[in-house]
Amino acid sequence: MGLDTDIKKIPGPVLRNSDPVFEFNKQIIDATIDYAVAYKPNVAFYEALGSRGWESLEKTVEYLPDDVFVIADAKRGDIGNTSNLYAKAFFEKMNFDAITIAPYMGKDSVTPFLGFKDKWVILLALTSNEGSADFQIQRLEGSDRRLFEEIILKGAEWATPNELMYVVGATRADHLAEIRKLIPEYFLLIPGVGAQGGSLNEVCRNGLNEDFGLLINSSRGIIYSSAESDFALAAKKAAKQLQGEMKQCLDKYM
Amino acid sequence: MGLDTDIKKIPGPVLRNSDPVFEFNKQIIDATIDYAVAYKPNVAFYEALGSRGWESLEKTVEYLPDDVFVIADAKRGDIGNTSNLYAKAFFEKMNFDAITIAPYMGKDSVTPFLGFKDKWVILLALTSNEGSADFQIQRLEGSDRRLFEEIILKGAEWATPNELMYVVGATRADHLAEIRKLIPEYFLLIPGVGAQGGSLNEVCRNGLNEDFGLLINSSRGIIYSSAESDFALAAKKAAKQLQGEMKQCLDKYM
Repeated sequence: MGLDTDIKKIPGPVLRNSDPVFEFNKQIIDATIDYAVAYKPNVAFYEALGSRGWESLEKTVEYLPDDVFVIADAKRGDIGNTSNLYAKAFFEKMNFDAITIAPYMGKDSVTPFLGFKDKWVILLALTSNEGSADFQIQRLEGSDRRLFEEIILKGAEWATPNELMYVVGATRADHLAEIRKLIPEYFLLIPGVGAQGGSLNEVCRNGLNEDFGLLINSSRGIIYSSAESDFALAAKKAAKQLQGEMKQCLDKYM
Repeated sequence: MGLDTDIKKIPGPVLRNSDPVFEFNKQIIDATIDYAVAYKPNVAFYEALGSRGWESLEKTVEYLPDDVFVIADAKRGDIGNTSNLYAKAFFEKMNFDAITIAPYMGKDSVTPFLGFKDKWVILLALTSNEGSADFQIQRLEGSDRRLFEEIILKGAEWATPNELMYVVGATRADHLAEIRKLIPEYFLLIPGVGAQGGSLNEVCRNGLNEDFGLLINSSRGIIYSSAESDFALAAKKAAKQLQGEMKQCLDKYM
């Protein structure tokens, strides 16, 4: 469940709360917790509100139960000493279980996030946006690999399936089967189902492994199901619906 | 001047202040303002402190005079609607003049930061860390360009020299002359002089253009010149020294 909580889309009654972003998240979490294994706040939405947004984010992470997996969708990537700081901020100061990382700066921008007990790096591999065509799918000289394949293979040298996952956009189901062959054991975080147009059925058909191996995210398709005061109930229905569709996929393919 | 303000390196007397990070920055800024054209807070150092760190960052940006160029070293990169939020956070909510952006997600992760009056995107091209060898310098099939060259050329298609610069690490002076040929008119932000081992002279010799065209950054080499209560005076001396060396380079090469 993506918590891309946009203050401009929060219904009026919630807006009157002293911390409307946290209050919205709290009601969404309460309504959907039975249908989600993980929550993924998109950090940008909180940063856009400055220090107050950061507080809302901290409170949201604290509010989530311990047995739920919490992903910071932060797409950070920096040199070693800076990555160390980010790792401490997200894994220790806040209690995130995982963080999304951009691969462009290479190994020493990723390894500082490894080695934290029960924490995960989720490396951007193939994203669901149009711009993924600019660099990610270009082929490299010598190996004939695409850039995202090179990143996937290097990542698998740096970290085990117990500390690393990859982001693969749901709109790229055509590449998912190939990626699954490259890294049969790694979990994939799949954004883009729903609002961004990815097909759940295609994702499952091409991406499942023996342990399921997929974390499928939906954000706007659930949390903005209604713009009125029934938003939490509407989110619950949408989450239940998607969870039912996922169960059908499981029954079909596993 | 990089404001990589690490709370663990702030001298004792400043630590007793109610906002030690801002107080440290304030004293550093007061001491160095005559020798710096730009300040570059590394956002990770503030985020590592959570909402309080974010407040220190906001106060630091507010404190800097209007005629100083202020760069958010944030290395953000996300899909369109998220990048829009980041752009508003850094350019409007806070009054940064520029932000560093990671290129991996392509055009639609960069363009939302363009078109703000007198604001700049600074795109990561070639970084100074060891991991830059993992992906950045790999050659692409077909064009025989290295990935960072492809990024530089695509960036120049997306934005003019009046809205885009590039990050090129000072430790990569060997590539700087080639980069200068690719994009004679764009400014380059050069981190890595000093603590990271880059040579100022090599950078100037290879990187200058007719408008100078370089923003050369030093962080730890200046702000941590002394760990005692004379830190601001020591930073002033280090900044003055580096500014003098830059002037010599100007006299020599321009």
